[in-house]
Amino acid sequence: MFRIGLDIGGTNIVSGVVDNSNKIISRRQILFPKGQPYSVFIGLIVNLIKEQSKELRIQVSDYKSIGICVPGSINREKGTVINAYNLEFHNVPMIEAMKTHFTDIPVFLENDANAATLAELNVGALRGYKTAVLFTIGTGIGGGIILGGKLFNGGMDHGVEPGHMIIDHNGPLCTCGNRGCIETLCSGSWLIKQGQEAIVKYPQSRIYRKTQGNREQVTGKLVIDCAKEGDEVAEDIFYRYVNQLSLAVVSCANLLDPEVIALGGGISKAGEFLFQPLRKLVREKSFFRFPYKIVPAELENDAGVIGAAMLGMI
Amino acid sequence: MFRIGLDIGGTNIVSGVVDNSNKIISRRQILFPKGQPYSVFIGLIVNLIKEQSKELRIQVSDYKSIGICVPGSINREKGTVINAYNLEFHNVPMIEAMKTHFTDIPVFLENDANAATLAELNVGALRGYKTAVLFTIGTGIGGGIILGGKLFNGGMDHGVEPGHMIIDHNGPLCTCGNRGCIETLCSGSWLIKQGQEAIVKYPQSRIYRKTQGNREQVTGKLVIDCAKEGDEVAEDIFYRYVNQLSLAVVSCANLLDPEVIALGGGISKAGEFLFQPLRKLVREKSFFRFPYKIVPAELENDAGVIGAAMLGMI
Repeated sequence: MFRIGLDIGGTNIVSGVVDNSNKIISRRQILFPKGQPYSVFIGLIVNLIKEQSKELRIQVSDYKSIGICVPGSINREKGTVINAYNLEFHNVPMIEAMKTHFTDIPVFLENDANAATLAELNVGALRGYKTAVLFTIGTGIGGGIILGGKLFNGGMDHGVEPGHMIIDHNGPLCTCGNRGCIETLCSGSWLIKQGQEAIVKYPQSRIYRKTQGNREQVTGKLVIDCAKEGDEVAEDIFYRYVNQLSLAVVSCANLLDPEVIALGGGISKAGEFLFQPLRKLVREKSFFRFPYKIVPAELENDAGVIGAAMLGMI
Repeated sequence: MFRIGLDIGGTNIVSGVVDNSNKIISRRQILFPKGQPYSVFIGLIVNLIKEQSKELRIQVSDYKSIGICVPGSINREKGTVINAYNLEFHNVPMIEAMKTHFTDIPVFLENDANAATLAELNVGALRGYKTAVLFTIGTGIGGGIILGGKLFNGGMDHGVEPGHMIIDHNGPLCTCGNRGCIETLCSGSWLIKQGQEAIVKYPQSRIYRKTQGNREQVTGKLVIDCAKEGDEVAEDIFYRYVNQLSLAVVSCANLLDPEVIALGGGISKAGEFLFQPLRKLVREKSFFRFPYKIVPAELENDAGVIGAAMLGMI
């Protein structure tokens, strides 16, 4: 028995066919049709599912469910995307549109961070925990919360936004309109911005040398790699980053006292180089001086697809 | 049928005899025996209960339960206070000590903010809500969380500390060791400190005039009263305060999306003068642009006593 999970991002759309043990047996990726009408988007994903199924020799009507996750707010009852700014989706009917093409299959819709949290809870880093938080750290910061062993979608069903807790109210302006949200100080974008500034200010730095003549682009990974290699400018950026991230973790943990906090997204691939100093700082700063676990998320880029495919099982 | 609720504070100990409808029928207050041995403290509260009962002509053995709440962390299993800094209690046996004097009555122990939250949930401002947060704003800031209609004591049973979410990581040093916790920027102490500075800097201000010759002490209430009366210096302090408080509310609400946030403690008595601008700011700043309720707590100083007396009923 197979399910479809679709992870819709502002850059890519990923479609995965997922088996009963929550393994992705087929994975296809296409570009998100930026600036195109919504009907074009629907046509593309319908086609994507059909072609992928043909290749696998699965009858579309045999899928148990189709799950779709989007980076935005959704209305469960109506099956609509309320707002997904990166997709320029505002009050679009997702389930209804899909149902006209797949009449016999249940279609589910979820926020992408919630889908990832669900996947991590069932088959990833949050398995077995009752109270847990996932931060997914990329261009921005999303995340999800597990309470009582279940996905918590906020007290009024609007979702949860751990990336928009404020940790520096005089800090950088956030897309949400506030200053110093966790997203502004702990996202990959913060590392990139610091890296770009370092190129201008410190031509002796490794960040400058690696990117000179555009050999490499400034990424969060590049800054962290330079720090790993002992570059002082990059180290300084990295330790400021780890400190800010520790404040984000502590602030959230002082409120919820979770058993575990998982970090996903590109940043989490920095491994123990990141997690070891982070754990030390968190232990020092936490109100409850207990070493709750801080771990990398496990499903990486597949979390959204797996979580979306899971929606019909819950 | 009556229950005893004891609210132990760093300044006062309050003992209340509470009836079946959660009304306090008798209330006694004594000073906390600062710097005295623990046995003196126990002797004092045992005596307090006995005298109060004699006056009411209630046999001590007739009480349904004795509930005690303290400003600190507790170990439910052992019935001990782990740390209550203001009381200088560190790993003291509370339930055992009480049991030697009241052999036939169940004795319960809880953190004071949790007790207050429980009281507000059952007979106060949080009645009927499933997801709610209480901030109790005094010298410091404590608070409690309701999830799924029940008191949430943290995912690892250490409690919750909404006052120690960080909103300004370059802000004032907090007793917990971090900077810019909600407690440092939204407590009564912040208002007092600003008021005291205003006296030195602005001798034309109403705060100065009211306190000259020590006619009145600088309190949070005095600063707010001066703002109500149109004093510009006090208004400036007050609006900075409301702004900081709005960030605290928003930060917490962006994570939990609660139905209601209640504010207790002395500050909440400022009424609509505080709540109206606060609600406006929160609406502007919240990620979910929904007007979740922001209300004053209802039980005021009695919340701890009523909540402590309730412990046996849960």
